[in-house]
Amino acid sequence: MSTFEALEKIFNPRSVAVIGVSREEEKPGYVIFRNMLTNLKARRTRFKLFGVNPFVKEILGVKMYSSILDIEEDIDLAIIVVPAKVVPKVLEECGAKGVRAVVIISAGFSEVGNVELERMVEKIATKYNIRVVGPNCLGVYDPYSGIDTIFLPFTKKLRSGKELISAPRPDRGLIAIVSQSGALGLAILDYMAGEGIGVSKFISYGNKVDVDECDVLEYLKDDERTRVILMYLENVKKGRKFIEVARSVTVKKPVVVLKAGRTEAGAKAAVSHTGALAGVDEVYDAAFRRGGIIRAYSLEELLDAGKALAYQPPAKGGCVAILTDGGGAGVIAADEAELQGLEVVKLSESTIEEFNKLKKEGFLPTFAITTNPVDLTGSATTQMYEASLRILLRDEKVDAVVLIALHHIPGIPSIEELVERTARVAKEHKKPVIVATIGGSEAVLYLRKYYEKFYLPSYPSPERAVRALKALVTYGAYLKRVGIMEKYLQEWREPRELF
Amino acid sequence: MSTFEALEKIFNPRSVAVIGVSREEEKPGYVIFRNMLTNLKARRTRFKLFGVNPFVKEILGVKMYSSILDIEEDIDLAIIVVPAKVVPKVLEECGAKGVRAVVIISAGFSEVGNVELERMVEKIATKYNIRVVGPNCLGVYDPYSGIDTIFLPFTKKLRSGKELISAPRPDRGLIAIVSQSGALGLAILDYMAGEGIGVSKFISYGNKVDVDECDVLEYLKDDERTRVILMYLENVKKGRKFIEVARSVTVKKPVVVLKAGRTEAGAKAAVSHTGALAGVDEVYDAAFRRGGIIRAYSLEELLDAGKALAYQPPAKGGCVAILTDGGGAGVIAADEAELQGLEVVKLSESTIEEFNKLKKEGFLPTFAITTNPVDLTGSATTQMYEASLRILLRDEKVDAVVLIALHHIPGIPSIEELVERTARVAKEHKKPVIVATIGGSEAVLYLRKYYEKFYLPSYPSPERAVRALKALVTYGAYLKRVGIMEKYLQEWREPRELF
Repeated sequence: MSTFEALEKIFNPRSVAVIGVSREEEKPGYVIFRNMLTNLKARRTRFKLFGVNPFVKEILGVKMYSSILDIEEDIDLAIIVVPAKVVPKVLEECGAKGVRAVVIISAGFSEVGNVELERMVEKIATKYNIRVVGPNCLGVYDPYSGIDTIFLPFTKKLRSGKELISAPRPDRGLIAIVSQSGALGLAILDYMAGEGIGVSKFISYGNKVDVDECDVLEYLKDDERTRVILMYLENVKKGRKFIEVARSVTVKKPVVVLKAGRTEAGAKAAVSHTGALAGVDEVYDAAFRRGGIIRAYSLEELLDAGKALAYQPPAKGGCVAILTDGGGAGVIAADEAELQGLEVVKLSESTIEEFNKLKKEGFLPTFAITTNPVDLTGSATTQMYEASLRILLRDEKVDAVVLIALHHIPGIPSIEELVERTARVAKEHKKPVIVATIGGSEAVLYLRKYYEKFYLPSYPSPERAVRALKALVTYGAYLKRVGIMEKYLQEWREPRELF
Repeated sequence: MSTFEALEKIFNPRSVAVIGVSREEEKPGYVIFRNMLTNLKARRTRFKLFGVNPFVKEILGVKMYSSILDIEEDIDLAIIVVPAKVVPKVLEECGAKGVRAVVIISAGFSEVGNVELERMVEKIATKYNIRVVGPNCLGVYDPYSGIDTIFLPFTKKLRSGKELISAPRPDRGLIAIVSQSGALGLAILDYMAGEGIGVSKFISYGNKVDVDECDVLEYLKDDERTRVILMYLENVKKGRKFIEVARSVTVKKPVVVLKAGRTEAGAKAAVSHTGALAGVDEVYDAAFRRGGIIRAYSLEELLDAGKALAYQPPAKGGCVAILTDGGGAGVIAADEAELQGLEVVKLSESTIEEFNKLKKEGFLPTFAITTNPVDLTGSATTQMYEASLRILLRDEKVDAVVLIALHHIPGIPSIEELVERTARVAKEHKKPVIVATIGGSEAVLYLRKYYEKFYLPSYPSPERAVRALKALVTYGAYLKRVGIMEKYLQEWREPRELF
């Protein structure tokens, strides 16, 4: 069975057995079964669901089997949620049943010193040729297939009785999340759900006795839903293989890695956390570069880059134009662009002429600044934004535009119109357009989310917008280096066409 | 009249005249008058409000005077919103009336090339000894006195008819905002309102013919509401004076500056924007250091530092402990701490012993990691957080704690309890405690805001939390350098006592 086939059984099985379904509402064995049952009832799943619990006949109205061996049908995926010491026995039964893919949620293995028990699991898996995610993991979430092993309570109750969503799931999207840390993986899902960013696949593989970052990368390479892969890693065991796999992936889709344990303090913490011997950071740096991997240096950067890479085409070069109605925000963006190694490019003569013409015609105020950054000032209107963005994108010297939209001014009476008009212009060229706003008011939040409906990634500060753009420039440079930029851009499609 | 007295007339006048009240709803002259009238009716203001418009008898039910000279009472502050060319005449009248403080909102001066007109304004102001904020400025906002010259529409209408708050005002707070850029200043207010962070004073002085960053600093030094001063600057005209004033301020309260135009591209943009000749960035760097000013390197950093400095005491040193229930987030925090020049300190023997005792008693899981970062793992409970935070804060080697609270786990059934218990412990010592969460779900947003009710500043990523803590360490180091740390800490009071 190829890695792709094996992982397809995990993310997209035809039949699933949860082994260790519980009656207690807070227990993982209950939460997982209930969540997938809910998906089933809402017709969000395509698989058959079975439950195993030898002590109970029925849970949530569903018949419980006393062993997986009693299930009449073939099982593609077993999700194991029994106490650690029972895992070997259960895994043996999976093997006998012919199951070839399991997710072991159960904790209590090497992470608490039970190395022997983990070895035993490994042996049984090898004997039966079972691919294992886990143990001690958060497991997988796939909003397309309905697979969901995330076992944490979905809501938290306040004293007032009000329930708050606590562990939300992002909608269907184009971004795959791979996290060596379960808690961090969940927190990332929480962030994405809150921001309205969709996910294609999620996996956190815990102690990784078998399935690791290499397998996952290989699988995601061919996953059609996944347009960009975001990884949180503390270490990579098989360095050479990882780079090799990465090279085969990054010519098809971008991979962004947040590699923690970069510093001495961080590396020490990583050893305590995942037993990861982090190694010298420069080695990772070089390896990532060879693999075509984009490196993020903070959690925010990882997620910000993901959105940009999922929604916008890679940039042909690092020449950036900045369009703003607030001078200060433009200065900040220009600073950050230079700090990120981008060029706040001198605009073409013809562009300057076009702007001057608009000034003469009285369409632009005479005091608008039409060098780069282009500052429409507080007198800006929606129409000025639209026209200026078009002029900038047509300029051959401009590879990408940072669109700073401070919506407060009277010349932007309708947020919806500003977004629709500029988004339409942005799609006339295969050049990235990244949006920056600042603020936390209803109007700003609406503006950001509305831009993202049109897949213009939108950020709450000029600096974050520029850094996200940097990822598109880095990826474009890589594609040029390996000689496939033109082909890649030709084949690049708008996100909405991918759903 | 001292600078303090003059600016007190601007922020806290007994009587105000708006010159150029308009009947058109979108016009600044309408918005300003209406907003202050609303404040008056809601009893949020303490001053008398007069309107001047020679063409209309009454606006919003209030009598209009045809000139400020017709007003019977003394006027502390005139807010001028007439067309640029009328400003000199109006200012003359203010002088004749004995007004000594004006805010000129009107645009159309040096920023559009009308240098002559600006000179004229300067001359008249000098002749009458009038202190001027502006022209071409957003002006001032003071939630304590009710003064508010922010003239942008308060809401934006969607097609559905729904109105979204677009230019919100933050509540009363402890942070003063000084912005050379009006649009950016407004965006900062927007951000603060959205995040629920209060403001003490806001000023954006536009073309600064008179009142500049030095005057404002001098005033804010003695403003009791202001605990920390955040500034956005593109240039400083009187460098030596600025440093001198800053030195007198920073021994009383922290000043954080985001100085834009750091790079060549940014400096060029700044020249276009405010005519600011930015100068070599290293010069600013050295000057800020001499003035005891903390430098922020991004908008997010500026605002994040502001919250930390307003809510928490300065740190005695750079030795940090990290407390987490997610290993990955702990590793990320440790990385960032080291990158920021902080020390992820080796905990004292007695601390380790205390933790070991708790393990033996079965209070902490044996697999919890009790070196620094302390990782309570997914088995953490509210009680473990409380006890561990207490132990860490008692450790003499620990100057500050980063509390990473990923609330998803079942051991934290009540967010409210977690916050209340840890916040109580945090206040047992005058050591900074900074909270980090990750995510965008209802529960995370609630957790963050609830922590801030107890004035524990709370950030959406470990990196941002650590960077905010860095500001407290930097300020602490400065206070030690000038020999007043002990005194400062003794006099330091909980934010809630300052309202």
